[in-house]
Amino acid sequence: MPEYRTALGASSRDAITLLGHDLAEDVMGKVGFGELAFWLATQRRPSTGETRVFEAVLAALADHGFTPTAIVTRLTYLSAPDSVQGALAAGLLGGGSRFLGVTEDCGRFLHAHLPDELPVDDAGWDALALDVVRTQREAKRFVPGLGHHVHKDGDPRTPRLFAVATEEGLYGPHLSLFAAIGRVHPQVLGKTLPLNGAGVCGAALADLGLPLELLRGFALLARTAGLIGQLAEELRHPVGNDIFLSVDLNNRSVEPDPYPTEGI
Amino acid sequence: MPEYRTALGASSRDAITLLGHDLAEDVMGKVGFGELAFWLATQRRPSTGETRVFEAVLAALADHGFTPTAIVTRLTYLSAPDSVQGALAAGLLGGGSRFLGVTEDCGRFLHAHLPDELPVDDAGWDALALDVVRTQREAKRFVPGLGHHVHKDGDPRTPRLFAVATEEGLYGPHLSLFAAIGRVHPQVLGKTLPLNGAGVCGAALADLGLPLELLRGFALLARTAGLIGQLAEELRHPVGNDIFLSVDLNNRSVEPDPYPTEGI
Amino acid sequence: MPEYRTALGASSRDAITLLGHDLAEDVMGKVGFGELAFWLATQRRPSTGETRVFEAVLAALADHGFTPTAIVTRLTYLSAPDSVQGALAAGLLGGGSRFLGVTEDCGRFLHAHLPDELPVDDAGWDALALDVVRTQREAKRFVPGLGHHVHKDGDPRTPRLFAVATEEGLYGPHLSLFAAIGRVHPQVLGKTLPLNGAGVCGAALADLGLPLELLRGFALLARTAGLIGQLAEELRHPVGNDIFLSVDLNNRSVEPDPYPTEGI
Amino acid sequence: MPEYRTALGASSRDAITLLGHDLAEDVMGKVGFGELAFWLATQRRPSTGETRVFEAVLAALADHGFTPTAIVTRLTYLSAPDSVQGALAAGLLGGGSRFLGVTEDCGRFLHAHLPDELPVDDAGWDALALDVVRTQREAKRFVPGLGHHVHKDGDPRTPRLFAVATEEGLYGPHLSLFAAIGRVHPQVLGKTLPLNGAGVCGAALADLGLPLELLRGFALLARTAGLIGQLAEELRHPVGNDIFLSVDLNNRSVEPDPYPTEGI
Repeated sequence: MPEYRTALGASSRDAITLLGHDLAEDVMGKVGFGELAFWLATQRRPSTGETRVFEAVLAALADHGFTPTAIVTRLTYLSAPDSVQGALAAGLLGGGSRFLGVTEDCGRFLHAHLPDELPVDDAGWDALALDVVRTQREAKRFVPGLGHHVHKDGDPRTPRLFAVATEEGLYGPHLSLFAAIGRVHPQVLGKTLPLNGAGVCGAALADLGLPLELLRGFALLARTAGLIGQLAEELRHPVGNDIFLSVDLNNRSVEPDPYPTEGI
Repeated sequence: MPEYRTALGASSRDAITLLGHDLAEDVMGKVGFGELAFWLATQRRPSTGETRVFEAVLAALADHGFTPTAIVTRLTYLSAPDSVQGALAAGLLGGGSRFLGVTEDCGRFLHAHLPDELPVDDAGWDALALDVVRTQREAKRFVPGLGHHVHKDGDPRTPRLFAVATEEGLYGPHLSLFAAIGRVHPQVLGKTLPLNGAGVCGAALADLGLPLELLRGFALLARTAGLIGQLAEELRHPVGNDIFLSVDLNNRSVEPDPYPTEGI
Repeated sequence: MPEYRTALGASSRDAITLLGHDLAEDVMGKVGFGELAFWLATQRRPSTGETRVFEAVLAALADHGFTPTAIVTRLTYLSAPDSVQGALAAGLLGGGSRFLGVTEDCGRFLHAHLPDELPVDDAGWDALALDVVRTQREAKRFVPGLGHHVHKDGDPRTPRLFAVATEEGLYGPHLSLFAAIGRVHPQVLGKTLPLNGAGVCGAALADLGLPLELLRGFALLARTAGLIGQLAEELRHPVGNDIFLSVDLNNRSVEPDPYPTEGI
Repeated sequence: MPEYRTALGASSRDAITLLGHDLAEDVMGKVGFGELAFWLATQRRPSTGETRVFEAVLAALADHGFTPTAIVTRLTYLSAPDSVQGALAAGLLGGGSRFLGVTEDCGRFLHAHLPDELPVDDAGWDALALDVVRTQREAKRFVPGLGHHVHKDGDPRTPRLFAVATEEGLYGPHLSLFAAIGRVHPQVLGKTLPLNGAGVCGAALADLGLPLELLRGFALLARTAGLIGQLAEELRHPVGNDIFLSVDLNNRSVEPDPYPTEGI
């Protein structure tokens, strides 16, 4: 008979433990929710400073208004009000490569470009960043996290997260490389692009030592809180039906356009 | 052209606001994640005490080990490792009427049985509770939140949440009625059942003034953190494939059992 | 060690069976997809006539243009193009009580109102229907499947499905009661409402002897084909980004509206 | 005001059209479900032969017993029986890169390796295949669709689908290249591997001229029918709770294993 090991939740007739601690006595009332999420993901309890940076990231990613994920949650609730879990799950399914992906892409990209021996000063980081940006440019690839379609003069989340990480002594190599990319890329690209706030979140999460494979997961956790906010607002000030009708009433029926089969 | 109103996230070229506040300056680094989730759901900022009770609830519901939702997230990741969002969404879809439903059911049930004029002492609550339990018994209906299949002598989360709510001055009518049900039900049912920890969470959330329609949503928020923990553990100490094989290798092919068509 | 029984797919090193038949030799190339779906759901192979009625229902429910489910699939693909399964799953999650629910609600409602001894002629069905409609009216409840917000003079799918079922000798008690409701309800309600096409689908599925608990499932199966069509069209003639922008660019930021806490 | 074009479903007060045809008169009762799904995806009506090959593929992929997707649907229904759509959606979310991905991967791989000028005889296809397999081998990459973990001596679906496609005159370049890979790979790999049945499905779908981006979508359509079968069986002969308990009762609580933070 196989045996399934876990360090997460466990319960007996009289006790419940979580991560080896008594859930009722040691966790409830003592551990904040951001702190707990960090602890569950890493199986180590974060410091106060780590929790603060982590929660700053979650705040930065929680809600951006009428994103596709928010619209999807509202429309799914309109269509299936019997299932709150379905409305939230549908919204999270939009958390993929395009709208929420930059956090993970940026964290992974920076991690992949850190050398074994890290630079020791800004000049060193700038040299590394210059090399990274040039290589991407030559390969005609974007640098993940560089640029923003709205905040063209700067994403206000970026300097704030740099500041919070600095205050907590958690300004590590990923943030250092990202900052250097911000400084040197005009030399290569011939124009100044902002450092994306979702991208800096990826850098900060990586500096916190969180698993790179799950950086998108933390963006989804933040977004779950945002989608509950969207649902709560939809319950009291609904817009879902107006959105639906704005599409349905403006549909225009056109002739089928057969998918081409000629050649291969 | 329709206009879509929201008090949640909004952004311009230079600024991002959330709930009417500057996201970068006033929220990031200053608002914890549990506090933010509460704020997003109610559009009012909770007090420190409200946040503490809310986060105690989230801790109580975050993870219970190998629940169906946890198994589903692990198996979905095994089958589709390309989509972290799919694995989390699949797990949340199990957050329905049976395994996560007691929180919402209990909160709604208690709310529906609060009279316009509330009792002023324990004797008054006991009389109300006696009436509620008797009515359910006569209708052969269960009292949501009464009983637990494992913690038969008491769910350790229950006294802890009562204590935290009391400490914060947030022991309101829903918790009062639930506690009274705990005291009086043996008189009616002839046996003593524990007050379920997920049920007391529903009572506490209702006393916090959170929307009843979304009580399940908060359980899902807590569970999202738990499922990220499950995924993180699966990445390093996988059991998903063993679970899959334990089922697949023990399948037994049987004859079809045609769905009956006789009668109507 | 538990053992898991199934009559569905099974495979050994050399063979694959499905429902007790050799998949390659007896199913592939010999069984149509609608027929197979019916067979899988009931574990009995349908007749040619049953398959025709079943496929007529699936055609009736496959796609209705820019429904919330279609919009959701397109927006989810826009946001997460890395996951076709996520876009389809998100769309299906809108298949709940409101937009796809009438099929199941109508089938269940009719079934619940069939007497042990069925009427033998139209007069008998009319008397039964009159009683059913009156009872609903007195309880201030709607009759599921009666009425349509667009096809106010008649849903073209309804007479067609009655005709196909009649041609195949599959016009059973559920369709009979639904037709009678169509004839008699003006006597009670004082106005003539159309019989909804999604409702008649529920009646036809129930007459086919399909499990009532899964009537919604068949609507979802039909819709899966429709959503693949929506995705295929989105890939070549995208509208998802226009839909997103039509909402996002017309957002209006308003003051937070705190959820009321006064009273209970 | 934007306008949203579609050739799929459209309705007016009196009529419903689908792909430019009258839904009630021209589609219901006249178009099978497999045929309709093909038509919706390509906006061209398939021939009888194309429909037969397409439905043979759907049959091949509909159900494979207790796969992760089937287990997930059963467990989600166990946990949230209030939402059939959630159980189906959760199962489909497992239709990703690993368990259902080979169909898409194989179709895309073959397509990417077809030269502008196609071989005209088996010798030509063998030469092409030899080159393809050698290139993969040198790059230490697998050939998608080559090999099967159970059917080591041959997947019975493969010769059957080749035969059906041949009968219908639809044995095109993708199937030709896949067959040639089956013939020549032992020369390169030094061992004989079976051509995977899910892989040959991808080749057949590509030869039907279906969009490569949606090959996974057709596997998901087939699987939707299978998952409804799984749900129908679970309703009458449940195994979900046994699966859950087999995991939960065999859990073993272990010490937390903190995620490493040393190094970067």
